[in-house]
Order: sequence, then C-alpha cells, then structure tokens
Amino acid sequence: MNEAPRMSVDQLNTVLAQSAFLAPYGFSVRSCEEKQCTLIVPFSASLERPGGIVSGMTIMGAADVAMWLAIMGERGTQEQWVTTDMKTAFLRSARQENVVCVARILKLGKRTVYGTAECSNEQGQLLAHHVISYARIFE
Amino acid sequence: MNEAPRMSVDQLNTVLAQSAFLAPYGFSVRSCEEKQCTLIVPFSASLERPGGIVSGMTIMGAADVAMWLAIMGERGTQEQWVTTDMKTAFLRSARQENVVCVARILKLGKRTVYGTAECSNEQGQLLAHHVISYARIFE
Amino acid sequence: MNEAPRMSVDQLNTVLAQSAFLAPYGFSVRSCEEKQCTLIVPFSASLERPGGIVSGMTIMGAADVAMWLAIMGERGTQEQWVTTDMKTAFLRSARQENVVCVARILKLGKRTVYGTAECSNEQGQLLAHHVISYARIFE
Amino acid sequence: MNEAPRMSVDQLNTVLAQSAFLAPYGFSVRSCEEKQCTLIVPFSASLERPGGIVSGMTIMGAADVAMWLAIMGERGTQEQWVTTDMKTAFLRSARQENVVCVARILKLGKRTVYGTAECSNEQGQLLAHHVISYARIFE
Repeated sequence: MNEAPRMSVDQLNTVLAQSAFLAPYGFSVRSCEEKQCTLIVPFSASLERPGGIVSGMTIMGAADVAMWLAIMGERGTQEQWVTTDMKTAFLRSARQENVVCVARILKLGKRTVYGTAECSNEQGQLLAHHVISYARIFE
Repeated sequence: MNEAPRMSVDQLNTVLAQSAFLAPYGFSVRSCEEKQCTLIVPFSASLERPGGIVSGMTIMGAADVAMWLAIMGERGTQEQWVTTDMKTAFLRSARQENVVCVARILKLGKRTVYGTAECSNEQGQLLAHHVISYARIFE
Repeated sequence: MNEAPRMSVDQLNTVLAQSAFLAPYGFSVRSCEEKQCTLIVPFSASLERPGGIVSGMTIMGAADVAMWLAIMGERGTQEQWVTTDMKTAFLRSARQENVVCVARILKLGKRTVYGTAECSNEQGQLLAHHVISYARIFE
Repeated sequence: MNEAPRMSVDQLNTVLAQSAFLAPYGFSVRSCEEKQCTLIVPFSASLERPGGIVSGMTIMGAADVAMWLAIMGERGTQEQWVTTDMKTAFLRSARQENVVCVARILKLGKRTVYGTAECSNEQGQLLAHHVISYARIFE
C-alpha cells in the first residue's frame, strides 16, 4: 500500500480549487503529513448561522473534506473514495474566527478508512470532534 | 409546551430565505406537520462532488436544517437551538436528482431535542439516515 | 435474496439459549416480523448500575442482539454477520422495569445491513435509540 | 474544578468490585492518569459470541466503564454521571485475547463530559474506537 503517490499541499489545494461545490467555503490546506491533513476554514460572515455562529454545515463539511484529502494524500487521486458514515459532536461555538480542522486516519484499509477529525479555533480550543468512515468505490 | 406558535410552511420558507449561509443550496420546505418537517434539495450541478454525486455536505446540511425547522415548527423563532450532535449514514448516492429530507422529533424536551432525518430521492429510495441532537441556548 | 429461511420466534429463542455470552441477561424474543425483531430484557437487579438504573451495557447489548436476530430472521443461521458500527442515544433511564427493544432493518444489502433499534419500557416511553450497521463475514 | 479527590487505581478497582452488574466481565483498572483511564478485559470464553469473537457487548461495556472511571478519577464518587450517547466503530475482531481499553476525556464540563475510548489487543492493534458523552445527574 506504499505505491500510491504522496501529494503535496499545493496539489491538494489544486484539488480544492477544482471542486466547485466547495467554492462557498474558501477551504485551504495548511499541511499534510502521513495519514493526516490540516484544513483551514477562513472566517466569513456568509458562513454564519443565526446567532453569529459558524454553521454546523461548514464545520461538518470541513471535517469531511479534510479526511477526503488525508486519504488522497495516502492513496492519490485515481481511486474514488466516498464518505459512508460520519458523526460530529459540537462542543463549543466558533464566533468570528477561523477554524482549523485536523483529520487523522486511524485505520487505512484497502476498502475502508476510519479516522477522526478535530475542529479547533486558532487558540487551540476544541470546537467539534468527528469520527468518519470512507469506502472505496470500485466501478 | 403547547404555547409556542406553530409556524406555517410559508413562514419557515421565509426563515430559509433570510439565512444567507444557506443560499448556495436552494433548500425549500415542502411540508411541516407535528414534530416533523420535509425539506427539498433541488438538484444543482454546483452541489456535486467529484464522481457526479450530490455532496455529503449538502446531504448533512439538509438534515441539520430540516431538524432545525422541525423544532422551530414546535417552539417558534424566539428560542435559540443549536446542533450538539449529528450522525449520518450514507446508504446510496444521489445522482442528478432532487433530495427529499424528512426530519422527525422523537424526544422534545425543554433543553434538548433528539430525532431522526431521512434523505430519499423522489422515488423513495433511502439515500442517507441521520440521528440529530439539538440543545437550547439560554443566554 | 428470498431464498434464506425465515426463522420462527422459537428458533430465534433457541439461538439465544445457545449463546453463553448472553446468559447473564435473560433476553427473549417476543416477535419477529419482516425485517424486524422485538426482544425483551426482563428486569433483574443484577443488571442495575449504581443509581438504580438498568446499565447502558445491557441496553446496548439488547439492541445489538435484536438487530443480529432481525438479520438472522431474513438471512438464516448459515451466514455470519458482525456489528461494524453502533450508536446509542440514552434518552431516559430504565428503573426496575422490563425493557422492550425493537430492531428494524432499513437497508438489507448483500454485504451490509443498516437499521435502527428502539428500547422502550412497557408503557411505550422511549428509553434509548440506536443506529446499527452489520457486515457479512466471508471466510 | 480541582477540588474533587483524585482516585487511586486501587480505589477504582474497589468501585468495580462493588458493581454487581459488571461481575460477568472481570474488568480491572491497569492505570489512571489525568483525564484518562486504562481498563483490562481478560479473555474469557464466556464473553465470546458465535464465531469465536469477543462480543461487541463486552467491548462496548468496557469502553463505557473506562470512561465512567476516568470521570470518577477527576470528579470523585459523590457526583452521579450517566452515559448520554455512545458510538462504537468495530475495526478488527478480538480472538482469544485480552482487550486493553483506554478512555480519554477531551472536554470536561460541569454538566457534560465528552471523550474517546480505544480498545486494542496487547499487541497494540486497534480493535474498536468509541466516542462517548456523559452528563451529570442533579437530583
């Protein structure tokens, strides 16, 4: 399983830039290490839900995408992986601040991946904790 | 707990129209019954992720919003409720089709709400199943 | 997928009686319908955790077993199915009372099953809600 | 929140010994550090489910109890805490081997606790991953 090309931060950011459905969010990759990817969600008033809180949709989307890129970092862009299950615990609200999301792969199988993601603010306070499963699609 | 005004479909659609963070999705409320709300996600190529599948973010967001509106339907707009926990099982991909999301409240407490949401296509095939917890914010 | 023998309540209770790891719990099958199984957890002081509450372990175990039997009811005893994922929301404590657990299959695939389970007391009050995934083991 | 007495491994094992509902499992505490507790599930044929696998019930129970003790280690025995939500991903089967369960508190609030637990075998292979929420009961 070491044959897949490891991807650079620039390459992963190119994937993001080419994903039209993510355009409203402005996500960018800060770093990518072994089985791990760190995504930044820059604060934008357009992502706030009523109450002045970054929307749960944005937080969940960031975690889902961070894991997608962590898998891509291990396995390259040729394989197609899709989310099969995801759970989010919202622990603290994000208010007018960037969100930093770190996805970590705990189990990297040939057909399934399982891992966690943590969304924090720039001060390191935990905002949300996620567990995520992906499956590879064989066409 | 029967004092809160029950809201009409038109009123809930007005809430959606005033929520800027939901603008990219085009959600609309189809119906609202006791402890239940049905939301429509109209197909849009801008919501597809690579592989021609409606993005998980869109599906999760629809379920989260449908539950938010189901609570609003019971409790009105004065109280502030936020998602505390949400789990999604992705069972089948949505491809170039509308998504119909039905949220149902199973437990309606003073401080917490728990319920399920089901996303299906217009043929009634189950696409995703969600369990969602909300908590009331007391300021 | 209609070739598997549908099993009777008596046959499912025989499976329970032969499962030594379940002996401490006294589970019994009340009914088994299409894609659905109802399990009874008779009250026993030995299942209480401190505080006089039926233990979470007992509640989770009942749901897991009810789904296992619901699958067996559809697919027979020759196939081996194991739990891959399970989430429980504890909504109300059970106190010195029987627990009735109903498992329902929402998606019955060749390799995976997804469904819900609800644990209630005999008055029909919802105690816990579960979502459960099983996978078939191919040896 | 530093006023609660920190409990010793011996004291936590005494709590286990006095919990009749856990008698079938033989759990013991190996260590207890800040916001963390490690529990051992000794292998016993009586905990196997059909197929020669340690039952999911045992694995889930171990994680639930390990978190309960981790909270007790921080907060003492006077407060009553109950599980409100728990999700388990079963990643690998345990076969005729001890299970080591490490629970870690990620958020320690006055009313709620959130954390993870990992069940591994003695070789360090991850068997199951859990996320767990507890709430304090105020009587």
